[in-house]
Amino acid sequence: MHGFQTLQQYFNNVIEKETFTGEPSTLYAPIDYTLRLGGKRLRPVLCLASCELFGGTLSDALNAAIGIELFHNFTLLHDDIMDQAPMRRGNPSVHTKWNTNVAILSGDTMFAKAYEYIGKAEKEKLPEIHSVFTETAIEVCRGQQYDMNFEERTHVNEQEYIKMIRLKTAVLLGASLKIGGIIGAASEEDLRRIYEFGKNLGIAFQLKDDLLDAYADQEMFGKQTGNDIVTNKKTYLLIKAFELANERQKESLNYYFDRTKNWDEQEKLNAVLEIFNQLNIREETQKSVKKYQKAAIQSLDAINISEGRKGTLLAIVDYLDKREA
Amino acid sequence: MHGFQTLQQYFNNVIEKETFTGEPSTLYAPIDYTLRLGGKRLRPVLCLASCELFGGTLSDALNAAIGIELFHNFTLLHDDIMDQAPMRRGNPSVHTKWNTNVAILSGDTMFAKAYEYIGKAEKEKLPEIHSVFTETAIEVCRGQQYDMNFEERTHVNEQEYIKMIRLKTAVLLGASLKIGGIIGAASEEDLRRIYEFGKNLGIAFQLKDDLLDAYADQEMFGKQTGNDIVTNKKTYLLIKAFELANERQKESLNYYFDRTKNWDEQEKLNAVLEIFNQLNIREETQKSVKKYQKAAIQSLDAINISEGRKGTLLAIVDYLDKREA
Repeated sequence: MHGFQTLQQYFNNVIEKETFTGEPSTLYAPIDYTLRLGGKRLRPVLCLASCELFGGTLSDALNAAIGIELFHNFTLLHDDIMDQAPMRRGNPSVHTKWNTNVAILSGDTMFAKAYEYIGKAEKEKLPEIHSVFTETAIEVCRGQQYDMNFEERTHVNEQEYIKMIRLKTAVLLGASLKIGGIIGAASEEDLRRIYEFGKNLGIAFQLKDDLLDAYADQEMFGKQTGNDIVTNKKTYLLIKAFELANERQKESLNYYFDRTKNWDEQEKLNAVLEIFNQLNIREETQKSVKKYQKAAIQSLDAINISEGRKGTLLAIVDYLDKREA
Repeated sequence: MHGFQTLQQYFNNVIEKETFTGEPSTLYAPIDYTLRLGGKRLRPVLCLASCELFGGTLSDALNAAIGIELFHNFTLLHDDIMDQAPMRRGNPSVHTKWNTNVAILSGDTMFAKAYEYIGKAEKEKLPEIHSVFTETAIEVCRGQQYDMNFEERTHVNEQEYIKMIRLKTAVLLGASLKIGGIIGAASEEDLRRIYEFGKNLGIAFQLKDDLLDAYADQEMFGKQTGNDIVTNKKTYLLIKAFELANERQKESLNYYFDRTKNWDEQEKLNAVLEIFNQLNIREETQKSVKKYQKAAIQSLDAINISEGRKGTLLAIVDYLDKREA
């Protein structure tokens, strides 16, 4: 069993050496660029750790892990076009550095290349892996569409929001673990449990993201906090605030989130955070993070494998909980 | 063995009944819309016909045929964004009817759904089908990128052009037939031959497309002829014209294809067609179409199956040759 950082390092070394080049170079350069922007490598690490948990080796799960990271980066690439995001991990996003057409097509190619790596699985295991991966890919698209739909709406409730982040973010964490488990020859029952672990971990992960955007230590966070509030993003914090607000507070939130008005950013941020503080939104969100973390750990506990082997995955829960960025 | 039109009808009936719906509807409506715009259904028909040729049944190859048609329509959807094409098969393209973000994301979902149908193959055959399909998907993306790169260039030679259309168009015809062949349990050698048949058929198909755009009977063609010339598209006709032109003709072509000038469309069209006629470009292109058709038929001939069974595929060669649109 390898620890989280060892797995990250192992995967980064592989990506470093793997060539994502080909002709025409205009198509491949953005793929190579995107994969070398780094990131936490959370999904491939989960895939590798799950395979090891059930007794497989790292090399068994490596191609699937690369396929999953390719898929994840493809979604970021296309999301950045849709969100008109100029930056990704502190560097220009692909559609900014090249152009939208290159970003669409190199994204499509990354998606196909993800399947190329998935296709390297053992023949007997490919049908199940193919099915989990494909079902998840469709769910991630559905999640992104819900997220875009929410932008057009005035109000979204908690249940709708959790469904959206489950699809957009959490199922891919679940699938990464499940695919690692399939490669590691886990039982049907354990595959269900490791998937549930990942799904709940993923929801906690996204809620923590929402929290950090408003409350992170500016220096540790590495980018401007409060961006979600300034851009009227429907986060868990805002949804919870609307749920708990009294009439006066609701009116005030509606006032500051009125798209037709051009707010002074700092004034809006201060006013909204003041309401969040009055309503204990930070604590409410933390409570929710804990709830999903607990559900994740319960699923992990139920897996019939010695506790000692679960250390890496438990450490990942802890790492995601304590992170400041 | 079923004929071409029977296979078209069979496939259209299936698509008619198949539901491509789900939540959120903003994501699925464009998929359903695109699949119901019709078209020749050439690729799924080739897949079905190839499966029958080698002794399989239509229902054996049906899911693969649907997967291939989904993939093809996904490429059209994303190509229409990249080419800023307002219309598709006489109807508004998806990015026009909805918007670019919806077109990107519903395209991505169609690509994933293509894999969903591909994944319904017999377990023992999935690895090979998965591999052919994925390799082809990457080649189609490469072809589209070459096509976009060519737009930025002043000159493209014949070899480069044939490579581009092989990747963008021909390999998917080859792969449709090969996948049908895998399902129909063809031998390795016959799979190679049926793929070559499709690849050469695909090149002939695209050259014929280029020809029709300039020389089709306006009424039969159903849309404006000469559009490729007006929009400065690098077609086989133009490449051949530059190859055969004398200095004076070359100068004239360069003059009319100068992007910085704003031509009267009819004047430009008449002048360019006049040069094409002087150089026998129509006949030169027809010669080339025949060459690739002949190569296709030679590959089909080499397949060790009674001639009677090859009637459907031969009829498709003939149909594509004689078509007026």
